[in-house]
Amino acid sequence: MDARELGLPGEVPSPETEDMPDEVTIWEVGPRDGLQNESEVVPPAVKLEFLNRLADAGLPVVETTSFVHPKWVPQLADAAEVLDGLSRVDGVRYPVLVPNERGLDRALASGVHDVAIFASATETFTRRNLNRGLDEQFAMFDPVVRRAVTEGLNVRGYVSMVFGDPWEGPVAVDQVVSVGKRLLDMGCGQLSLGDTIGVATPGHVETVIRAFVAAGVPLHRLAVHFHDTYGQALSNTCAALRLGVSTVDASAGGLGGCPYAGSATGNLATEDLVWMLDGLGIRHGVDLRALVDTSVWMAGQLGRPSPSAVVKALAR
Amino acid sequence: MDARELGLPGEVPSPETEDMPDEVTIWEVGPRDGLQNESEVVPPAVKLEFLNRLADAGLPVVETTSFVHPKWVPQLADAAEVLDGLSRVDGVRYPVLVPNERGLDRALASGVHDVAIFASATETFTRRNLNRGLDEQFAMFDPVVRRAVTEGLNVRGYVSMVFGDPWEGPVAVDQVVSVGKRLLDMGCGQLSLGDTIGVATPGHVETVIRAFVAAGVPLHRLAVHFHDTYGQALSNTCAALRLGVSTVDASAGGLGGCPYAGSATGNLATEDLVWMLDGLGIRHGVDLRALVDTSVWMAGQLGRPSPSAVVKALAR
Repeated sequence: MDARELGLPGEVPSPETEDMPDEVTIWEVGPRDGLQNESEVVPPAVKLEFLNRLADAGLPVVETTSFVHPKWVPQLADAAEVLDGLSRVDGVRYPVLVPNERGLDRALASGVHDVAIFASATETFTRRNLNRGLDEQFAMFDPVVRRAVTEGLNVRGYVSMVFGDPWEGPVAVDQVVSVGKRLLDMGCGQLSLGDTIGVATPGHVETVIRAFVAAGVPLHRLAVHFHDTYGQALSNTCAALRLGVSTVDASAGGLGGCPYAGSATGNLATEDLVWMLDGLGIRHGVDLRALVDTSVWMAGQLGRPSPSAVVKALAR
Repeated sequence: MDARELGLPGEVPSPETEDMPDEVTIWEVGPRDGLQNESEVVPPAVKLEFLNRLADAGLPVVETTSFVHPKWVPQLADAAEVLDGLSRVDGVRYPVLVPNERGLDRALASGVHDVAIFASATETFTRRNLNRGLDEQFAMFDPVVRRAVTEGLNVRGYVSMVFGDPWEGPVAVDQVVSVGKRLLDMGCGQLSLGDTIGVATPGHVETVIRAFVAAGVPLHRLAVHFHDTYGQALSNTCAALRLGVSTVDASAGGLGGCPYAGSATGNLATEDLVWMLDGLGIRHGVDLRALVDTSVWMAGQLGRPSPSAVVKALAR
């Protein structure tokens, strides 16, 4: 069921949006990026139901978990158990985050086909997150990516703090492109350009994407990852679509907010993205009603309402 | 203070957004469109402080109240008292809604310079809202607009249900343009194109605006008015800006949600709009910090948090 079947206005032909892609791959990050911010540990059985429902709702990529050390993210300490229990849907990809070679070993032992590494565009955040400098992060990721590629895995490179850094403020576009290119050269198949603190606006998004294209990076190797901290996530996504980007990260129900902030500071909600794509006539393969039902159920598990506008509106 | 002074990434030059206006007029609708949905009556003194703080924060237009019959909107029964108590800031406009000739009489007696009428783009909503048909609404508004113009007032014409109607579903673009042109021919200086139920998406917005332009309506006679029911308000606003629209309706703190829905179903939040305009380097004249403080204060008066993402983020 999509927005049109709900009896609401659907696709309207538009001269201006002709350059947008015909089809978008929604890269669902709720089970990993969303849940890793939850302080209360979610049982593996609940995670598995969440993952299976997301795949059943038509999401083509469901980022499943992370092999980060359990000391840092206790929420995802059950990564191997979750991967072992997954009912894999044909054609659906289940990537996992791997922070280092030990994480890659564990991912390979769990039989994954897709992994992701999490890099930073800024010196300060690299130091705070990885306890090493901007350049040193490449020395850390290089053996991980090379071995993953040798093992036949697809590797995604997250670039965080692309549009701003809480300590440094604005981030030079050249620096972002340089970090991204080094990850691609290393063997990453796709970059996910992340607005980790949610400060970006549409012109800034266009500038960064154009800079990558000018540096010779094809659009299909770029994905965008926006947070809604300042309410800009969907506008920024729309700006990226206008330039032809066709992979968009989103989180079912907008999962991923800092628990202390209540709501609306998390990832772009997958449902709000689907609503826009339906209106734009862009294919995505997701059953909106099944997705909303999943987010309502997950909100019940977490004990607080989803911050997604579409979930709130359709759950009434 | 704007987003840059808060130490966050500011304007980034963008090739793609060059057609956007250099300056946008924010038409603040919180005191009227926002408060009219509040079931608990707000005392006139609180409304006056709200209005005065909004004007002091730099908003150039603050829609003040409505002379609708108190039986229909008890919240705004104090319209004359509020207008009488207003500390008018030089250069700020304080429009009021007038539903009919009796309302216009009261507005004139209160010394207003700007009025607005509230028309519908659809047959069903006109019947439900005004108890008359689509064509009959013009017979009702015609004497109001003509007399207001004769009296030297500026008249704005709201067009509601432009992008969808809860009973009819999609609304024909031709019909919207026809309704809008009749209001302009009648003497309205500007139309506010309203997505009353929040279903629009960016391609649809472009289609409607292009249709008005194709029908000979200059862009400065169009304003946009989006609701965030499905999370699309800011993306839709951005689509309108790209086509050169330079008047945008917004509500401080996102006031205007249906009280029973909790949050996030109201008008586009002025703060979220200001954040985007700052990032795009578009002038607007609003002091974001003063505006956020006002919305936090007003949320305290109403006893529930603002649904605006920027208010939530900056109020921490």
